Amino acid sequence: MYRTHTCGELGEKDVKSDVVLSGWVQKVRDKGFVVWVDLRDRYGITQLVFDEERTPAELLAEARKLGREFVIQIEGEVIERASKNPQLQTGDIEILVKKLKVLNQALVPPFTIEDETDGGTDLRMKYRYLDIRRRPVKDNLIFRSKVTMEVRKYLSEQGFIEVETPYLIKSTPEGARDFVVPSRMNPGQFYALPQSPQTFKQLLMVGGLDKYFQIVKCFRDEDLRADRQPEFTQIDCEMAFVEQEDVLNAFEGLTRHLLKEIAGVEVDTFPRITYDEAMKTYGNDKPDIRFGMQFAELNPIAQNKEFQVFNSAELVVGIAVPGGASYSRKEIDGIIEWLKRPQIGAKGMVYVKCNEDGSYKSSVDKFYDQEDLQKWAVATGAEKGDLICVLSGDTDVTRTQLSALRMEMAEQLGLRNPSEFAPLWVVDFPLLEKDEETGDYHAMHHPFTSPKPGQLELLDTDPDAVRANAYDLVLNGNEIGGGSIRIHDKNVQSVMFRHLGFSEEEAKAQFGFLMDAFQYGAPPHGGIAFGLDRLVAILGGQETIRDFIAFPKNNSGRDVMIDAPAAIDEVQLEELNLRLREK
Amino acid sequence: MYRTHTCGELGEKDVKSDVVLSGWVQKVRDKGFVVWVDLRDRYGITQLVFDEERTPAELLAEARKLGREFVIQIEGEVIERASKNPQLQTGDIEILVKKLKVLNQALVPPFTIEDETDGGTDLRMKYRYLDIRRRPVKDNLIFRSKVTMEVRKYLSEQGFIEVETPYLIKSTPEGARDFVVPSRMNPGQFYALPQSPQTFKQLLMVGGLDKYFQIVKCFRDEDLRADRQPEFTQIDCEMAFVEQEDVLNAFEGLTRHLLKEIAGVEVDTFPRITYDEAMKTYGNDKPDIRFGMQFAELNPIAQNKEFQVFNSAELVVGIAVPGGASYSRKEIDGIIEWLKRPQIGAKGMVYVKCNEDGSYKSSVDKFYDQEDLQKWAVATGAEKGDLICVLSGDTDVTRTQLSALRMEMAEQLGLRNPSEFAPLWVVDFPLLEKDEETGDYHAMHHPFTSPKPGQLELLDTDPDAVRANAYDLVLNGNEIGGGSIRIHDKNVQSVMFRHLGFSEEEAKAQFGFLMDAFQYGAPPHGGIAFGLDRLVAILGGQETIRDFIAFPKNNSGRDVMIDAPAAIDEVQLEELNLRLREK
Repeated sequence: MYRTHTCGELGEKDVKSDVVLSGWVQKVRDKGFVVWVDLRDRYGITQLVFDEERTPAELLAEARKLGREFVIQIEGEVIERASKNPQLQTGDIEILVKKLKVLNQALVPPFTIEDETDGGTDLRMKYRYLDIRRRPVKDNLIFRSKVTMEVRKYLSEQGFIEVETPYLIKSTPEGARDFVVPSRMNPGQFYALPQSPQTFKQLLMVGGLDKYFQIVKCFRDEDLRADRQPEFTQIDCEMAFVEQEDVLNAFEGLTRHLLKEIAGVEVDTFPRITYDEAMKTYGNDKPDIRFGMQFAELNPIAQNKEFQVFNSAELVVGIAVPGGASYSRKEIDGIIEWLKRPQIGAKGMVYVKCNEDGSYKSSVDKFYDQEDLQKWAVATGAEKGDLICVLSGDTDVTRTQLSALRMEMAEQLGLRNPSEFAPLWVVDFPLLEKDEETGDYHAMHHPFTSPKPGQLELLDTDPDAVRANAYDLVLNGNEIGGGSIRIHDKNVQSVMFRHLGFSEEEAKAQFGFLMDAFQYGAPPHGGIAFGLDRLVAILGGQETIRDFIAFPKNNSGRDVMIDAPAAIDEVQLEELNLRLREK
Repeated sequence: MYRTHTCGELGEKDVKSDVVLSGWVQKVRDKGFVVWVDLRDRYGITQLVFDEERTPAELLAEARKLGREFVIQIEGEVIERASKNPQLQTGDIEILVKKLKVLNQALVPPFTIEDETDGGTDLRMKYRYLDIRRRPVKDNLIFRSKVTMEVRKYLSEQGFIEVETPYLIKSTPEGARDFVVPSRMNPGQFYALPQSPQTFKQLLMVGGLDKYFQIVKCFRDEDLRADRQPEFTQIDCEMAFVEQEDVLNAFEGLTRHLLKEIAGVEVDTFPRITYDEAMKTYGNDKPDIRFGMQFAELNPIAQNKEFQVFNSAELVVGIAVPGGASYSRKEIDGIIEWLKRPQIGAKGMVYVKCNEDGSYKSSVDKFYDQEDLQKWAVATGAEKGDLICVLSGDTDVTRTQLSALRMEMAEQLGLRNPSEFAPLWVVDFPLLEKDEETGDYHAMHHPFTSPKPGQLELLDTDPDAVRANAYDLVLNGNEIGGGSIRIHDKNVQSVMFRHLGFSEEEAKAQFGFLMDAFQYGAPPHGGIAFGLDRLVAILGGQETIRDFIAFPKNNSGRDVMIDAPAAIDEVQLEELNLRLREK
C-alpha cells in the first residue's frame, strides 16, 4: 500500500499516528541540522522533517539528495509543528520521517511547478502533464468536472435522458468545415465528425425520447481564432412538445442552478431582450449587462444643425461614461486613437464633458449650444461628472464601434467584475443572414430553425424582416448557449431549404432522412446547446477556455505535446484508397 | 402550452380535472357509437374517449380520421373508466376529449410500433427514429442513461475526476486499426481518432490528477464482427499510487454498486482466478461461472490403456453434464455433430453415461472397465444421472472445443440465467502473446502493461512465461473490463518496446512524449477500462449491444439511416491535399 493518507488531510487530531504518504517533492529546505521537504499530491502539501537529532544520518543524507518533483513514499510519525502555518491545510503538523523510498526520480522540470510559473505558453503546452501539476490548472480541471456533474444531476432530475449520438456521421452542407474520416471498410468513402448532434437530437424527438441531453465533443475544421479549438464540448439539449417559453424556462433553471451551486450566486429571473433591441441598445447581440452605458440614438437632437458630419450620418449614437468628465485632454486623445485603430476603424469621436457645475464642454461647441448638449445628456443619461462619447456613420458599423468602446471603457473602469454574473436572454433573432458579398441568404442559427408563426410568407417578399424562434443565452457579454424551436413540418423545411439555396436534390441527398422522419409523426420540438468550455471558464471567473481543457490544441490546431497531426504511412493511405497530391 | 400532464401520470386522483395531453396515436378503436384512442408518449399510454352521447359529431368525425402515429394534442376531462385496466399505469381513467388538434400527420409506418414488431433489422435501422418509439428500445436507452449516471455518481463520490481527453490525436503503432482524420489546416497531415485514451490517462497520472475517469467514445477501424461497432464507449479509469489490489478493490466496488442499484442484486466479494487456472478449468479466459461443469484433465487415468486416440493426445479432458445420462442416442449424436461443425472442429467425443443404478455405459467400453470409468466420474464430479463428455487432442484446441461444448450444454440446460450475475476477476495474464505465424510477440494487453515484479529478466529467456500485472473483470462469460498496472519507469518501458519489435526511433516517434513524461517524476499507476455497451447489455439481461445504442452501425460499419460513409466533394479532397486512387 502506497499511502495511508493523502497529503491534504493530516492535522492536529493525527499527532502521534504512524502514517505512510506518497507524492512529489515540491521543495527541499536544507538548514544544515534540519531538512524540510514539502510533499505534494492532488489534495495538498504536507511538510516532512528530517533532523540531526532524531533522524538516522543515512536517512538524512538520502533526504538531502531529493530533487524537485522526485516521487517518493515515506513512513513516519505525525508530530506537532513548532511554528504552525495557518495558510496550509496541514499547517499544524509535520511528519518525522522514519523511512524514505524514492519511487521515481525526476529531471529538473523545464519550468517551475508553482502557482506562478516561469514557463511560457508553448513550453507549458509541450509539457502539459507538468503544467497540470500546478494548482491553478489542476483546480480548473477539477472545477470543470464539478460543473459537468452538476449539469448531469440537474438535467437527470428534470427527466432529461443522456443519449450518445454517433461521432462517425455524414458530411453536411456546412461541409467545408467538417473534419472527414476515410473508411477502410468502404474505400473512397468518408464519414464526417459532427459539428453538433443537431439532426440526431431532432430524430430522438421524432423517436419520442421527449427530453434529451448530452455532454458531447463537437468538431470544426476552420481557421482558429485565438480562443477556439478544433474540438470543443457542448451541453446539447432538446425537448419535445415545447414552445420557446418552455425551453427558456427549463434552461434558465439549469443556469440558475449552476450559478448557485458552482458560483454561489443567487440570480433572479433572467432579463430578456430582443435581438433588435440588443443591437440598438448595446450594438451587440451578446451585451454585457453588468454595467450600463446604454446607447442613446441622437439623430433627432443632433442632426439638422450645422455639423455636417452628423447631418450626413445614418446614425448618431452616444454613451455616457461614468466619471469621464475628469479625463485629461491626453486621456481623451488616447480614447480617440484607440477608436481609430484598424481593428475598430472609427473616423473620430465627438465628446461632451458634463461638468460638476452643470455646464457642458464639448468638442463641437461651435455647432451646439448648452441647451443642445443638455438634451444629449438627458438622452444618454449622463450625470454631472460623466463623459458623453458620440460616434456617427453607417448604422451597423457605428454600433459595432460604439459597442467596442463601451466594452473598453467598462474594462478600464473595472466594471467587468468576474465574480458578478449577469445572464440575459436575447430572443427573436433574424431567421436569415445576408452574405453582403454574394447577396445569398444563410441561416443565422441553422437551417432547422423555425420562423415565427405567420412569417413564412415574408420569406419571399422581405427575408431580412423574418424573425425566428431563436434565442441565445448571454452571460457577462459571452454567448454561452443558443437554440431555437425547430421546424417539424416537412413542407416548411422544404421551403427553408429552397430559400437557403438548396436544390431539391441536394436537400434530399443531405437531409433526406430528416425529411422522411418528419413524415412519420414529428412532434413540435426545440432545444439549446451550451458551449461548455466557455461556460466553465466564465463560471470560474476566467477568460481563456484553454485553461479549462486538459490537453488543448494551439492556434494552428496542433497538439504540440504529442506532435499531432502528423504524416501517416503510405500503407495506411493505400488501404484508404488515398494518395497525397503533389505540392 | 402543449400539455399539462404526460400520458403516464393520470389516475383516479385526477378524475374531474381538465387536462391537456400531447402524444402519438398508438391505436384507434372505432366501435361505432364510441371511438377509443390510445395516446402514447415516453411516459405511458392514456386512453381517450369520444362517444356519440357526449362528443359533438364534428369532433367524433375528426377522431375517426386519426391514423396510427399521428401527433395530436387534446383537451378533455379525466373520467373514471367503466372497465379498468390494471395492466396500464393509467388504466383507471380515460379522457373525455373536448378539443382535438392534429399537430402532425403520419404516413403508415414501415413496421408496427409495438413491443413486438414485424420489422426486420435492416428496416428498423433505416427508420431507427421509429424503432426508438418502441418501448423495448426506448427503455434500453433510458436504462443506459441510468447506468452512466450511476457510474458517474459513484466514481465522483470516490474522488474520481472526469477529464475529457482529446479525440484528435496521433496515429499509434496499432495504427492499422486507427481511423485517421486529414487536417485542412495542416494539409497532408492526419490526426487519428483514439482507440482508447490510454496514453492521456497515464499523462494525467503523471500530472498528479490521482484518480481519473471518463465515459468516452473510442474508435476502431477493423473488420466488424456481428456484435462490434466501429465507435464504442468505454468507462475509462486510472489511479496513481496503487497496486493491483487497490485497483481491483476500487472497481469491484463500482461493479457491486451497479449490480445493486441497477440490477437489484447483492453480490459478495468477487472470486478471483488466474489466467492459467481459467484456461485449465474452463478452457477460456472469460469463464461463465453461473454454472459448474468444470474441466477435469483425465490424462493420468485415461491414458496408457489401449485407446490410441487418448494415448496419442496431448490433453484428455472432460466435463460432467448434469442430467445428461438420460439423453437418447440421437441426442448424443446431435451433440457430436454439433462438435464436428467447422466452427468447432472436434473430431469426435467420448461419453460416459452415469446410470442411476451406479453403473457406467460409455462409448469406449471396449477399452475401459467400470472401475476406470468410476475414476473419470470422480475426477469430473459426475453424479448418478450425469453424462461425462470427453475430448482429446492438442491442449489449446481441445480446451477451446470443450469450452464451446460447456457453453452450449449450459445454454441447452437453461443454466445461463440473464437475471443471475456471477462476476469474476481473471488475473495474472501473460504479458506477451506469440503470433504463431510470424513468431513475433505482441503485448497481450498493451505495451504499457507492467510485468510482475522480478519477471523482467525472463523476457529474454522465456517470454511465454512472463506474467503481467493485468486483470480482466468477467461477468456471465463476458469480459466487461480489463486493465493493468502500468510501467512508470522509462527504462522498463524501453525494454518493453524493444521486445515488442520497436526500434528506438520508432518508439521515440510514437511515444516520445510518454517516455519524456516518465523522466519528470511519474508515479506508480494503473487502471481499467470497461466496455460500456456490453456492460449495459448484460446488466439489462440482454445479449445484443446494438439494442443499447441509439444509432448503431451495421456489420459493414454503415449507418443505413443517414447513409454514411459517403463520397465527398472534389473540392473538399483538394483542400485536404488528397486524391482518390484509381480503382
